[in-house]
Amino acid sequence: MDLSQIRGPEDLRGLTEKEMDALAGKLRARIIEVVSKNGGHLASNLGVVELTLALHRVFDSPKDKIVFDVGHQCYVHKMLTGRNELMDSLRQYGGVSGFPKISESEHDAYGTGHASTALSAALGMARARDLNKGQEHIIAVVGDGALTGGLCFEALNNLGQNKTRLIVILNDNQMSIAPNVGALSNYLTRMRTSKAWLKLKHRLSDFFLKVPLIGKGLYNFLQRVKDSVRNFFIKDHYFDSLGLRYLGPIDGHNERYLEKILERAKRFEEPVLIHVVTQKGRGYKHAENDPSTTHGVNPFDPENGEPTGRSKERSFGKAAGEMLVELGREDKRIVAISAAMVDATGLSGFGKAYPDRLFDVGIAEAHAVTLAAGLAAYGMRPVVALYDTFLQRAYDQVVADVCVQNLPVTFLIDRAGMGGADGPTHHGVFGAAFLRHVPGLMVFNPRSLEEMQAMLRFALSHEGPVFIRYPRSEHPLMQTLPYQDFVLGRWERMNEPGEIALLATGTMVPEALIARDILKEKGILAQVVNAATIKPMDTGILRELSLAGTPYYVLEEQALAGGLGSAISEYCVQEGLKLPERIFAVPDRFIPHGSHQELLKDCGLDGESIAAALMKEREKTT
Amino acid sequence: MDLSQIRGPEDLRGLTEKEMDALAGKLRARIIEVVSKNGGHLASNLGVVELTLALHRVFDSPKDKIVFDVGHQCYVHKMLTGRNELMDSLRQYGGVSGFPKISESEHDAYGTGHASTALSAALGMARARDLNKGQEHIIAVVGDGALTGGLCFEALNNLGQNKTRLIVILNDNQMSIAPNVGALSNYLTRMRTSKAWLKLKHRLSDFFLKVPLIGKGLYNFLQRVKDSVRNFFIKDHYFDSLGLRYLGPIDGHNERYLEKILERAKRFEEPVLIHVVTQKGRGYKHAENDPSTTHGVNPFDPENGEPTGRSKERSFGKAAGEMLVELGREDKRIVAISAAMVDATGLSGFGKAYPDRLFDVGIAEAHAVTLAAGLAAYGMRPVVALYDTFLQRAYDQVVADVCVQNLPVTFLIDRAGMGGADGPTHHGVFGAAFLRHVPGLMVFNPRSLEEMQAMLRFALSHEGPVFIRYPRSEHPLMQTLPYQDFVLGRWERMNEPGEIALLATGTMVPEALIARDILKEKGILAQVVNAATIKPMDTGILRELSLAGTPYYVLEEQALAGGLGSAISEYCVQEGLKLPERIFAVPDRFIPHGSHQELLKDCGLDGESIAAALMKEREKTT
Repeated sequence: MDLSQIRGPEDLRGLTEKEMDALAGKLRARIIEVVSKNGGHLASNLGVVELTLALHRVFDSPKDKIVFDVGHQCYVHKMLTGRNELMDSLRQYGGVSGFPKISESEHDAYGTGHASTALSAALGMARARDLNKGQEHIIAVVGDGALTGGLCFEALNNLGQNKTRLIVILNDNQMSIAPNVGALSNYLTRMRTSKAWLKLKHRLSDFFLKVPLIGKGLYNFLQRVKDSVRNFFIKDHYFDSLGLRYLGPIDGHNERYLEKILERAKRFEEPVLIHVVTQKGRGYKHAENDPSTTHGVNPFDPENGEPTGRSKERSFGKAAGEMLVELGREDKRIVAISAAMVDATGLSGFGKAYPDRLFDVGIAEAHAVTLAAGLAAYGMRPVVALYDTFLQRAYDQVVADVCVQNLPVTFLIDRAGMGGADGPTHHGVFGAAFLRHVPGLMVFNPRSLEEMQAMLRFALSHEGPVFIRYPRSEHPLMQTLPYQDFVLGRWERMNEPGEIALLATGTMVPEALIARDILKEKGILAQVVNAATIKPMDTGILRELSLAGTPYYVLEEQALAGGLGSAISEYCVQEGLKLPERIFAVPDRFIPHGSHQELLKDCGLDGESIAAALMKEREKTT
Repeated sequence: MDLSQIRGPEDLRGLTEKEMDALAGKLRARIIEVVSKNGGHLASNLGVVELTLALHRVFDSPKDKIVFDVGHQCYVHKMLTGRNELMDSLRQYGGVSGFPKISESEHDAYGTGHASTALSAALGMARARDLNKGQEHIIAVVGDGALTGGLCFEALNNLGQNKTRLIVILNDNQMSIAPNVGALSNYLTRMRTSKAWLKLKHRLSDFFLKVPLIGKGLYNFLQRVKDSVRNFFIKDHYFDSLGLRYLGPIDGHNERYLEKILERAKRFEEPVLIHVVTQKGRGYKHAENDPSTTHGVNPFDPENGEPTGRSKERSFGKAAGEMLVELGREDKRIVAISAAMVDATGLSGFGKAYPDRLFDVGIAEAHAVTLAAGLAAYGMRPVVALYDTFLQRAYDQVVADVCVQNLPVTFLIDRAGMGGADGPTHHGVFGAAFLRHVPGLMVFNPRSLEEMQAMLRFALSHEGPVFIRYPRSEHPLMQTLPYQDFVLGRWERMNEPGEIALLATGTMVPEALIARDILKEKGILAQVVNAATIKPMDTGILRELSLAGTPYYVLEEQALAGGLGSAISEYCVQEGLKLPERIFAVPDRFIPHGSHQELLKDCGLDGESIAAALMKEREKTT
């Protein structure tokens, strides 16, 4: 049985136990093959091989609907639902997405990307099914990390009251990206390690393997068996308080046993939560040993797990973290907050230097921000480090907790711009638009590490909220252009005035420089302005350009609506100044996955495209 | 002892039991006096009289910090902290805020307005205190309604792990605005009604009242007593799973007893949750009998509880609800979702007509939206009804769940515009800015009930997300101007072209008409355009105005940054069209509380101010 022979879940049905075991091995090999080439989510997918096999043997997708929380653990699911061959294009521009996507397959019941949504979405489907008198099963596969998100709790609270029939698989691998935190995580650990379970484990497997396969007339029998089954599991308090039936913990790598439990779960007429214990990275030594680093990876050598070709670009997050360690030495009020991404946001050094002053709150961005507001209200100087797209989760807290009270919270916003291979749910292209209109805050887009560090120094001395937004890494060109100093509201002129001016912010500064050089060859002199502070702006430069009548253009790797170009246009309308000729920005559509350079081209935002567009415009006017 | 003699919490210290009882009565009378005159939150404040007295007797504010969740139950707190006289200006323009406000008093430790934030903020303060080796107490007062919000869970999960010393008062009045929903609410009900508690209640009071007052040497004694104390309470599972020590339930109207428990809570070195049972509306018959209606009230006659002067304006929410009942009859796919505000958003009729098709999810806006996405993914036509400011809580779900997947979810967004007496956390002035940049959605601002209903009909037939935003009630002027029909992307011309044009959206249409009439008297002819769809726009009209060279102005009751004026400016820059002369919009600062008309004036957005500004501009140019 080769992987290519599995054209859909129905091809799994007839397989023998031996064939199933072999298939699990082949799926693992395929995951490693694909991810080592394209990068992607390694450890989580290796951990759910047996679970996904069992789900597709027991349930009847696409009639039954499986919703994967976050969704980065969907590779096995994709391989089993007709997309194995396409997996070579995983996360490539134009290729298969790294997340479930309704538009990609009828087996992808619900598209995900951000954590903690699956229970809410699955509950919606289950209620729709009940209103339509449908019989199908709705299954939500939720990690223990996602449980720390408030959205997940809101869904549990709603689900447990109405007793909607729904199967929740709690995929407990003891981790988010990093080891999981929070009281609920401690609680699950107590469940997993309770002696009672360890004793029961074997007895339980034996019991289930002896029960005959489910036939048509077994329902009544099972009703009777149900309670005796429950006695095999650990007594749970948390989910029980919320009105859910709990079954577990269960070994997530015993595929046959998982099938038995899932068959039984099908018969419940109320919500049931199955606590499945899996191991991140299972079956691949390098990932088992280091599940945190191998959560999301760049291409690597499958032999030794070492990355192939290391990026030489300097990381903004790392530099921000180093600066924080330095500033934290002088100023004891500085504390840092992360939402389950201490390493990824560059805070691990700060945590090592000042363990009491780093708070990892789990996947809980809203709490991260309000916690920071509380710290600031007491007089501390909290720094919240999040990815731009995840800050979306805390928009209300930014407005009502931080800005209404004008509290000095500094935000280090990573992955601002088009994020690459993770696709539309991960691009940080709305940050400028969802922040700029909030009174009292400042928004900065540094072009280089040095500028970011100067901004961070400023932010920590400022009596109000500051958002510093940057991409994963600095454009190599920036190292050749030393940064002078930071003066609030003053934009940096990168060269002398020309016939036209390019006002570029953040990641677009290097693209503007590239465009400038191309234009220069064609005899057009352009001044590049580093519009690094989009709130406040350097209105002096806008007045100068207006007075001089210089045609100018705005360049930003952000949604057009509500971004810097929009800010400049509003200002110029209100002040009666000359408007920009054109705004180069991310267009009003969701941007697919691809490399940063491919996506810039896709949006006409790379230096070459910009130069070409400017020359075309010039031809028109002359 | 008169209320005016209480200049601060220290004045409570020496009072006898009798004086305290009398004071409670006076506080209640004062609440009724103030709220009957100014409107405000009645039932919740009547319910926390004894609790607030006990808090201020036992704790030492402002050194100890009391954080009120939501904050609308802070009236007693304000009366006891030097603001009793000022309460006559409660919720009036320039007067005392209806919520705690850092800038108003040092006793307001943290400003609130939106639900479920207190635990996160208090935890931040408690961590700051520990880092600073402070000894003070941090107390979070949280309603059972707020517990349904995910943010509250995120904080509990974080708190329970680190065992930060913190006192949580769970003020359980069995309600949000309406009776509370959710599995956790059921759980609390089981606790409150357990026979064990009812039996213990008396024994417990006796026990505590016999224990001597706390002296200096009592700490060790209390350590020993602690466990025996615990045995007096009900065994809790939920909070215990999350690592919190639970004490309760406790009668929230026995002030002396509350003091005893709070004194003991002070001695705990870990987080403790005290489950206090209170009655909403306590002590005022009309509020006790109808705590839902008397949650937030307009001015009323204290004798009979009847509103004084009923508004004759037509409610948008009510009309939307009626339309939904009608449309729901034809289309069984229509379902409605509310976040703890079924009545307030006009959905009660729909719930009566189709009880299976209305989902009240509790104070859980993020879940409301993702639940809707799940329903829509299954083929239903969900309608989510929220206030504009609370939709901020679900911004990420709007982007990643609804819009990325282009799901047909209709949003009825009430209180869009400046909300009035509740102040900066409740104005719906950012909706246009935080929605407009999201690809694939539509944003409509109807001027009248008829237009809203036509838009709702359209939205339910459209294969993508639509946001219909409206204020509480229609401007009376609108009834005199019948609405024709709705054509997507076509703006309504309210009169023939003139020298200038006023492009007004939503609530600004009547103000534009008022301005037009004033201008007409001065000999200036202005055309008013009802720019009801801000995404998409009527670009035909923009081209016409540009071609004709007509100076035009944009009018919106929304933040300038990112709103309609911004949208028009962006479009005109990109297309090389004539820009607006000026945008009349909400300026870049938080707007205080006041009446709608006062706030319009405050922002220069009432018809008179606009006419005056336009005439001034004309004088300048001619």
